Formats: sequence, C-alpha cells, structure tokens
Amino acid sequence: MVSDRINGLAAILAAVRAGAGITQPLLVERVGLGRSVVAQRVAELEAAGLVEGAGFGPSSGGRAPRRLRLCAGRGVVLGIDVGATGLIVGVADLTGRMLASRQRAIDVAAGPKAVLSLAESLAAELLEPRRIPVWAVGVGVPGPVEFRTGLPIVPPIMPGWDRYPIRRRLRARFGAPVWVDNDVNLMALGELHAGGEPAGHMLYVRAGLGIGAAIVMDGRLYRGANGSAGDIGHVAIPEGGAIICRCGNIGCLEAVAGGAALVREGRLRSPRLAAIPGLRPHHVVEAAENGDTAARDLLHRTSALLGGTLATLVSFYNPNRLILGGSLAPARDHVLGAIREAIHKRALPLATRDLRIEVATLPEEVSGVTGTAHLALDEVFSPANLEIWLPAGSPDQVPQNVW
Amino acid sequence: MVSDRINGLAAILAAVRAGAGITQPLLVERVGLGRSVVAQRVAELEAAGLVEGAGFGPSSGGRAPRRLRLCAGRGVVLGIDVGATGLIVGVADLTGRMLASRQRAIDVAAGPKAVLSLAESLAAELLEPRRIPVWAVGVGVPGPVEFRTGLPIVPPIMPGWDRYPIRRRLRARFGAPVWVDNDVNLMALGELHAGGEPAGHMLYVRAGLGIGAAIVMDGRLYRGANGSAGDIGHVAIPEGGAIICRCGNIGCLEAVAGGAALVREGRLRSPRLAAIPGLRPHHVVEAAENGDTAARDLLHRTSALLGGTLATLVSFYNPNRLILGGSLAPARDHVLGAIREAIHKRALPLATRDLRIEVATLPEEVSGVTGTAHLALDEVFSPANLEIWLPAGSPDQVPQNVW
Repeated sequence: MVSDRINGLAAILAAVRAGAGITQPLLVERVGLGRSVVAQRVAELEAAGLVEGAGFGPSSGGRAPRRLRLCAGRGVVLGIDVGATGLIVGVADLTGRMLASRQRAIDVAAGPKAVLSLAESLAAELLEPRRIPVWAVGVGVPGPVEFRTGLPIVPPIMPGWDRYPIRRRLRARFGAPVWVDNDVNLMALGELHAGGEPAGHMLYVRAGLGIGAAIVMDGRLYRGANGSAGDIGHVAIPEGGAIICRCGNIGCLEAVAGGAALVREGRLRSPRLAAIPGLRPHHVVEAAENGDTAARDLLHRTSALLGGTLATLVSFYNPNRLILGGSLAPARDHVLGAIREAIHKRALPLATRDLRIEVATLPEEVSGVTGTAHLALDEVFSPANLEIWLPAGSPDQVPQNVW
Repeated sequence: MVSDRINGLAAILAAVRAGAGITQPLLVERVGLGRSVVAQRVAELEAAGLVEGAGFGPSSGGRAPRRLRLCAGRGVVLGIDVGATGLIVGVADLTGRMLASRQRAIDVAAGPKAVLSLAESLAAELLEPRRIPVWAVGVGVPGPVEFRTGLPIVPPIMPGWDRYPIRRRLRARFGAPVWVDNDVNLMALGELHAGGEPAGHMLYVRAGLGIGAAIVMDGRLYRGANGSAGDIGHVAIPEGGAIICRCGNIGCLEAVAGGAALVREGRLRSPRLAAIPGLRPHHVVEAAENGDTAARDLLHRTSALLGGTLATLVSFYNPNRLILGGSLAPARDHVLGAIREAIHKRALPLATRDLRIEVATLPEEVSGVTGTAHLALDEVFSPANLEIWLPAGSPDQVPQNVW
C-alpha cells in the first residue's frame, strides 16, 4: 500500500493538473487534507521542481493566495499513436499540451519493426531541437493489449505484432518508462482530459473502420482483468444474420455496422458514392452533410444497428455519459437520433434517466495522440509510480530509468 | 473526503471482518499502516466495543500476538429479501452470520404495504426474544432500485412499488438506517462474502425465472450511475426473433432463455415435464439430473442462448470470474459446458485467458438473504458512514437514528 505522504502528493498533483491556477485554499477543499499538510506537500512538490507559483488568486480577507501550476517544461512525454493506416508521433509538455507532432501514412500490417522504426525516427526529429529529458512514452495500437505488460495479444488486424515487446524496445531507445494501450482507450483518455467536466461513468464508443469502446468509471479508465475491456467489435447482433466478418465469425457488429459495411452499402445505394475511388467512411459522412439522402439513410441505418448494441451496454453498465467518437462522429445530426432512439427503446427508464448521449469534441486523430501523452502522464503521476521515482529527500529525481 | 483516521478504522474493520482471528502484525501487512497507528486504531475500536481479543496467534519470537474479532453480538442487522413469489426475513449478527430467519410465500404484485407489513411482523417475531439494538436494515427487491434513495424505479414485475419509500417506512419502524438494492446484487454480495478468495472483477449472473447480472469490480459491487447496472434481462439477442416478452418488447433475452421459456419449451418437449402441474424451472433441472434427455437438451439450448449474451458481456467487461447463480445453477454439468463454449467462440483470447466460469456455491435464497445482511454491514462499516456514527471520543455510539 502507498504511504499517506505519496497519496497526498498524488492527489495534489492531480488537482493541479486538472485545474491549472488552483490555490492552496482550494486544494484544501478538493483534496480533503488539512491546511498544514497541504502546505507541506506543496512545499515538497515545489522543492522537487514539479509545481510552481503563477500569480495570485482572489483574497478571502488576508493575503491573496498564490495560484499553482505544474512546471510544464521540466520534461516532455512522447506519444506514439499507431493506427491501422496512419502513424502520429507527438511531443507534449508535462501538462499534456502537444508541442509538436508528425503524421505519416502506414500499414500496420507491415509489422512492428517497420512501424516502430519510423516512429522512432519521427520522435528523434521532434526531440532533437529540445534538450529536455523524455519522462515517459505512451503508445496506442489498434488491437487488444495486455496493459500490465504492454504486449499486444493476438491482435486481429496487426499481423506480426502478437506479443511484440513494444515496451522493452522503446524503453531501451528513449531511456524512459513506456505504457501501451489500445487506440479506443487512448481516444477516451484524450477526450476525458479535453472535457471541462467530471466524467463519472462514461462509455466512449468509436465508430469508424473498426468499432470499439472504452469504459470510464468514476472518471478513470477501467481496463478489465487483462486489459481487453471494451472490445465490442465482434459481439453477435440480432441483425447480423449470416454475414461473414473479417474475424472469421458470423454476424459481428463490425461486419454489419463497421466502416467496411458502410462503404460496401454506400457503393450499392448512392451513385454519387459509387463514383468515389477509394471510398472511405468519411466520404459517406460528407455526402450526408451535402444532402445525399441515400448516404443519410445509410448513416441512420448504421447508427440504429450500433444503437442496438449500445442499448445492451447501457442496460448492463448504466453510464451517465455516452460519447460517440470516430469517423461517424462528425455526422452528429445523422447519427445521434437513431442511436438515442435505439437505446431508449430497449433500456430501462432508470438506466437512461441521467444519460447524456453526445459526439466527441475532438477528432479521433487528435484525441488519440493526446491520449497517448495523457496515458504516460497519468501513469507517471499515479501514486504507485510516484512512490518509485519521487523518494523522500531526492527532489531532483526524474522518472527515467527507474522502471 | 473522509479523514485518515476514519479510513484507517474502516480498513482495519474490513480486515477483521474478512478474516476473523487476524493479529495486529498481520493487520500491519494487510492494511499498510504503521505498527503504532494500527495499535492506536485497534485500541480505539476496542474502546468503542467493536473489536475484541480472542486467543493468541503464533509468536514470531516475542510475545504471541492477540487474535482479533468483531464483537459480533453488539448488535444485529435485519435482512429482508423480497422475491417475486417468496419473502425471507433474517436476523444476523455483526459478522453477517444468520441467527434466525422466517420464509413465507408472497406475490410481490400484492404491493408494498401488504408485503412490508408481513416482513415487519416476521421481523418483530425474530427480534422480540433478542434485546439487542438493530444497527441497520438491508432490503432486496426483484426490480431496479435507485441505490442512493432506495426507491424502486418503474419495476416491471412489481406493480404498486414504483417510488415507494421503503427506506422511510422501515427506518421509522426499526429506528435504524436502511439500504435497498435489487435481488441480483444481493445474491452476488452473499456469494462474495461466502467465497474464501478475493473476487477481482466478477460477473454474477442469475438465471432463473428472470435473468439479471451483478457487476463486481475489484471486489466491490458496481451499481452504475443510477443503480441499474447489470439489468440484462431485456437486451435484444440474435435468436430472439419476434417472440414477445412480458415487458412488451420483442426478442428479449429473458423471453427466450428465462424461466417462462424454459417451462413452455419443457412442456412441449418432454412428456414427463408436461405431466408436472405448476411446472417451474427447478423441475426441468431435476428432470435433467434424473436422466430426462429432452430436459438435458433444453437446458443445453437455454445455456447456449444465455452464453451468447454472456459472450458480449465478457468481451465488454473482461472479468476474471463469471459465477452462474439462480435456479439453473444446480444443473452445473448441463449448463456450464454450453456457456463456456458460447463465450470462447465469440470473445477474444485475451478476454477469456484468465476467466473462470463456475456455478454459485450458495443456493439463491441463502445468498439473497445473506446478501441483505452484508449490504447493511458493508454500508454501516463503510468509511463515509463510519464517519457519521463513530465520532471521535464517543465510544458507545451505535449507528441508530443518525441517518
């Protein structure tokens, strides 16, 4: 178990990270520790070079309290967001603000060596002009990951990546701790940190080429026993019939409501869409926005199919927010109605009473790479990890080479 | 936020509750507080009459450490388990051990006044010979409950119970705090406290007349944003077709794999079952055990249908234990195989790698009423509630009349 001191430091860091400009009196309220303990812990974080003053807050009679913020420039974190067809590498400061990024088209099926070599050279370009230590690396991949070890496990669309030691390779390359997670969890994390409000119990659903979900419980990602929680692309759905999925099973959600189905049906139903070479889901969304009624109907139908599965998950999980991300999200007006209808038709009144159903505020590429940075920061600043790299009386430790 | 002192007291109480006979050196290990803090908190709990010594543990060189246990007889808790057709009222000591109970046939549709009057008079019979204060009351009902307020919300099979103030009524009657939850959560709670091992991420599924689930996360019940989490009886399933459910929707899990379907199909398929007046699910289970192949096939088919939905939930939630309770559980050998097969066919290798699928160790009536007692005890001894009724320096406070 982590000591009270470390728990206090972690709680204060979390509050400073969530609300830059917070004052000590507000920290006392938020963190629930006494004034003198908060003052002592803040002094410790200042001595460690993690927190600094930045102006003054409103006075409540006496001396105006200092505003506190993270020493954002003490280090950087590296985010590597591997998608099925694209790679984004970014460098962020300790608040998660993206300082610079690079994007390249890839094929994830080219395997881990090719993809990670490219990621490493993009990272080197980004890091070269900055003489700042890399504190941690966050990595997202489009497949199931055993979170504890960072290993992809039998990932369906990532041949060659099964149990590839991503963590060991990148730790050796950058001399910093590495965490790996699946792409949907990272999009949810990016969205969580972008949102101004507490997230409660949230379901983040990515509807794009693939379909996946991320589970947020009391504002924190829930990953399940092995890290595969949220993997809903290949659940069987009532409307699935005998359609064969790329996974080999029949009647999967993704086979019916995923991007490949959207493209296939789009070609059949809309002459305008059939004329687009290399048709992709975002083309269907654009056509719907531009008044193509066949595209609108198709989005409506796809959303209703997705909504059927979401009704099951809402009944089971009883979230208070459902966020739709992925390439369907920009078609807000053509998808949310059908999803809401499907959920309200099936789920109990109690399960939907406080449920808000919305589209993501960030485009998926942005939430993904932002999420990789926040993954790294959430882990570096977690109580269990703070205890490792922030030992008592070693204020100039940084979290390198300790994992 | 709760003070460190109360958190420490709650952690020690939880460890003493989980392992009667625990010693102070073991508490230091389990709870992660220092020796002197543990000694101080234990002294406080002894002064409050909550914990007492009971013999001595093995010595590790010096004086043998005392074993500690809860002062089980300081008070009692009352458990009221309302089922669709039966009512069980029990009185338990502070360890959750059932001291006495009464069972009656009821029809929950008779409404809250009739059912709770009966529960109150059964409770009075049980309490009369005992001159011990009732510390708390736990109540289970067969429908969705808003946990925060204890109100049933639009419960499908409980006419007259919608928003009935169970808590207010019973608090006035017994002068003790009252918590209300749905029956499946209580069965899971009873099972959790019966199990010798840590539960991790568990899915408890009740398959009987109705179908429902309870979600355990890190050993604790997860109830969702409003308390309706686990309500899976009326999710749409691929094999649901156009079968009309008692809820008015079509193709619900319960309409196809619930007790009514089992009875209907049993009558059609097995002459032996057709001959039983008032056929119920347990008759099908008994017939299967006695070699009726039609009953066996029917249980296999029903389990496969249930397993299809459980595969979706396993993919989504990634538990490490799935416990099957309810009236199908005694048919272990005729149901677990089909459930395992359905789950392994659909869910990812990572999602099922560490998954154990088992039947409940307790019959549902026992787990239900045991669960109501543990609901009351878990809440009474939770940090947030301890802070209310165990103020500093008032060692003879009991948790009456403070909520």
